[in-house]
Amino acid sequence: MAGPVYDRIAVLGCGLIGSSIVRAARAHGVAGQIAVFDLSPEVRARVAKLGIADVVASDPVQAVGGADLVVLAPPPGAIASAAEACAAGLKPGATLTDVGSVKGPVAQALAAIAPPGVFVVPGHPIAGTEFSGPDAGFAELFHDRWTILTPQQTDDAAYPAAVRRLAEFWEGMGAKVELMDERHHDLVLAVTSHLPHLIAYNIVGTAADLEEVTQNEVMKYSAGGFRDFTRIAASDPVMWRDVFVLNKEAVLEILARFTEDLQALSRAIRWGEGDKLEELFSRTREIRRGVIALGQESAEPNWGRDRDRK
Amino acid sequence: MAGPVYDRIAVLGCGLIGSSIVRAARAHGVAGQIAVFDLSPEVRARVAKLGIADVVASDPVQAVGGADLVVLAPPPGAIASAAEACAAGLKPGATLTDVGSVKGPVAQALAAIAPPGVFVVPGHPIAGTEFSGPDAGFAELFHDRWTILTPQQTDDAAYPAAVRRLAEFWEGMGAKVELMDERHHDLVLAVTSHLPHLIAYNIVGTAADLEEVTQNEVMKYSAGGFRDFTRIAASDPVMWRDVFVLNKEAVLEILARFTEDLQALSRAIRWGEGDKLEELFSRTREIRRGVIALGQESAEPNWGRDRDRK
Repeated sequence: MAGPVYDRIAVLGCGLIGSSIVRAARAHGVAGQIAVFDLSPEVRARVAKLGIADVVASDPVQAVGGADLVVLAPPPGAIASAAEACAAGLKPGATLTDVGSVKGPVAQALAAIAPPGVFVVPGHPIAGTEFSGPDAGFAELFHDRWTILTPQQTDDAAYPAAVRRLAEFWEGMGAKVELMDERHHDLVLAVTSHLPHLIAYNIVGTAADLEEVTQNEVMKYSAGGFRDFTRIAASDPVMWRDVFVLNKEAVLEILARFTEDLQALSRAIRWGEGDKLEELFSRTREIRRGVIALGQESAEPNWGRDRDRK
Repeated sequence: MAGPVYDRIAVLGCGLIGSSIVRAARAHGVAGQIAVFDLSPEVRARVAKLGIADVVASDPVQAVGGADLVVLAPPPGAIASAAEACAAGLKPGATLTDVGSVKGPVAQALAAIAPPGVFVVPGHPIAGTEFSGPDAGFAELFHDRWTILTPQQTDDAAYPAAVRRLAEFWEGMGAKVELMDERHHDLVLAVTSHLPHLIAYNIVGTAADLEEVTQNEVMKYSAGGFRDFTRIAASDPVMWRDVFVLNKEAVLEILARFTEDLQALSRAIRWGEGDKLEELFSRTREIRRGVIALGQESAEPNWGRDRDRK
């Protein structure tokens, strides 16, 4: 077996994603020593108790000391300040990455903060659950999921090797890696992740606020489709607040398209244009088939959620 | 063990719901003999091959002959014509029910079509998967799911007993039964089922039509939330066309509320009002907890869909 990809890594922010990286890096042997820092003393104590890291530091500079890879994994709005807090401890030749759902503004901030000699390679694993915190992570979260890296423009001859090494780290944890321009990343994710979350939060909010239908009825009869939205709308509120603030332009652009299409659908319903409805409803089935064919989804009815009832 | 609730039942329309009723009725012993009719010769042949019914009739009048319960389970837009097609064979004292997602117009049509002496008790089991057809059904589909019955206004002294018997039939298949006014049913379901489907179909359509992001990218990076919507948007196109045409008023009313709320969210994003976003995103978590507490949803992260990867 080859040695670890990095002799020492530091993970700053140890929630669902951070703690999954810590667990996966150890389980897959892609990191030698693993240090963790989190702003919250409670999270640090919990991580120490879980015993998933080699070092739980109470200071970010100390956490990143000697690390070959530093992964910033706090909520997106706190990534820049986490970088600032640890910058003094970053060693020359180290790679600095993050896991945020928005890449443009974060990449810009990291480039400005990182000391010379540190390779900034922003990243984003497209994986997660509706749970949060250090207990929610698991080593297999990234299996068969895509991690997008958005390398920066640079003349540094050593930079491409740093990008390749980070890709190797992710692949070692079971992920598939794609390189992408950061602006394009933010547009793609606005479609495949940010808008779906916005819509889910919105529909659950709308349903909760109705006068004619009680909250109890909404929850009781949710198996007709609504319950799926409640899962997404149970995701971490702080992380998602940050995503929408940071990716404002792309989200509003995609939202405008969504709203335009929804108005056309609304009109088709008002005028009883069944053929238009059926045409759209048939077309969307194809996309589902593609998602399953690309290995991004379970092919089981209802995600196998009825399995236990059989 | 008590005998069956009905000595003979007939199920007209044998797709996901119809074939699940056939399987469940047999598995739970709530029906003596089970006859099936479907407009499609292919479906009839398939049902005969599956061997899930006692009789596969090629004529609706023949199918309902002697039946104590007739369940109409074609797409919602075809329920009235299915009732017309079998009306001549309905025996006095039989109960006529359906399983459609919209109750108002269907209830009205059934009341007009049913011969005197037949008890019309419209119904709706809130259960399903994204699959369609006779092979998609299974006997446990209704376990712990609600079936709503919408009894009609009548002076017939024997009617309440017919409603109770139908409730017993559903309970025998593992369902929980609730009685509801048909107009209220259509409003509640517009919220918990019809709008979620409309939104899911719409977002998948929007994503498929973008110029800047390819369909392949949409499918590849769908694990960030989008893939959940593709499951709902893979539901039966004909059934859903009928739902929106039949429940137009309630759907447009709820859609207007949804759109209003979405515009407020859009404005909060445009003005960077993070606190407003976080407030909504925190509130929606409560609804998720309620859905799980009411037994309508799996509490496992990602519905246990990652289970097989662990």
